[in-house]
Amino acid sequence: MVVSLADIRAVTSDAVFTDGCPTRTVLDHVMSKWGVLVLLALSEGTLRWGALRREVDGISEKMLASTLRTLEADGLVHRESYPEVPPRVEYALTDLGRDMMERVLPLMDWIAANAPAMLSRAD
Amino acid sequence: MVVSLADIRAVTSDAVFTDGCPTRTVLDHVMSKWGVLVLLALSEGTLRWGALRREVDGISEKMLASTLRTLEADGLVHRESYPEVPPRVEYALTDLGRDMMERVLPLMDWIAANAPAMLSRAD
Repeated sequence: MVVSLADIRAVTSDAVFTDGCPTRTVLDHVMSKWGVLVLLALSEGTLRWGALRREVDGISEKMLASTLRTLEADGLVHRESYPEVPPRVEYALTDLGRDMMERVLPLMDWIAANAPAMLSRAD
Repeated sequence: MVVSLADIRAVTSDAVFTDGCPTRTVLDHVMSKWGVLVLLALSEGTLRWGALRREVDGISEKMLASTLRTLEADGLVHRESYPEVPPRVEYALTDLGRDMMERVLPLMDWIAANAPAMLSRAD
């Protein structure tokens, strides 16, 4: 079981998650304020642009477009455009994205269960 | 097993991760660019300020201070100040923080293993 950063470094490199390392770049994409919420919405299945925007409550059109481009370039999200009138564009997790979400969802589940108590203690 | 946002909503509420919900606030703290890196560094054990700053490569003094204040208010990080000259201040994960990191580390491990391939495909 992975219990610390040292365990991760033992099988990758000492540079893991340092500035400029690919791991830091991907971490920034996934752990961005919106990245994880977009991935979470798509964990429920394929969504069209409008449905995705409603699902990710509070995201702007510009930020949704930019987040999707980043996640698509990383290979986590697939964009499918259908030549219809009006054009239909759908977004879905790739196999890689689904594989990653298996590691993200237990954390989201923990946050959902613990967040209310965490914030009330700060009052 | 939690496989989608719908599963999380089934045991919490439909408002989970929506704008203004406590879950969104905690998510923003943990998933901030620096929050997760600070938590990751502390997963190795108690660290003094200087060591923590070296470990979280690229973080500014101001951002480290602000990130630690947020994580401390959330109950994830404990700050211990020793009345010595010069003053010694140490940071460690709380039990809650360690519990959460058990869900974060598998994701970090996945990112460490997959990030290089993900970024090279974008070239």
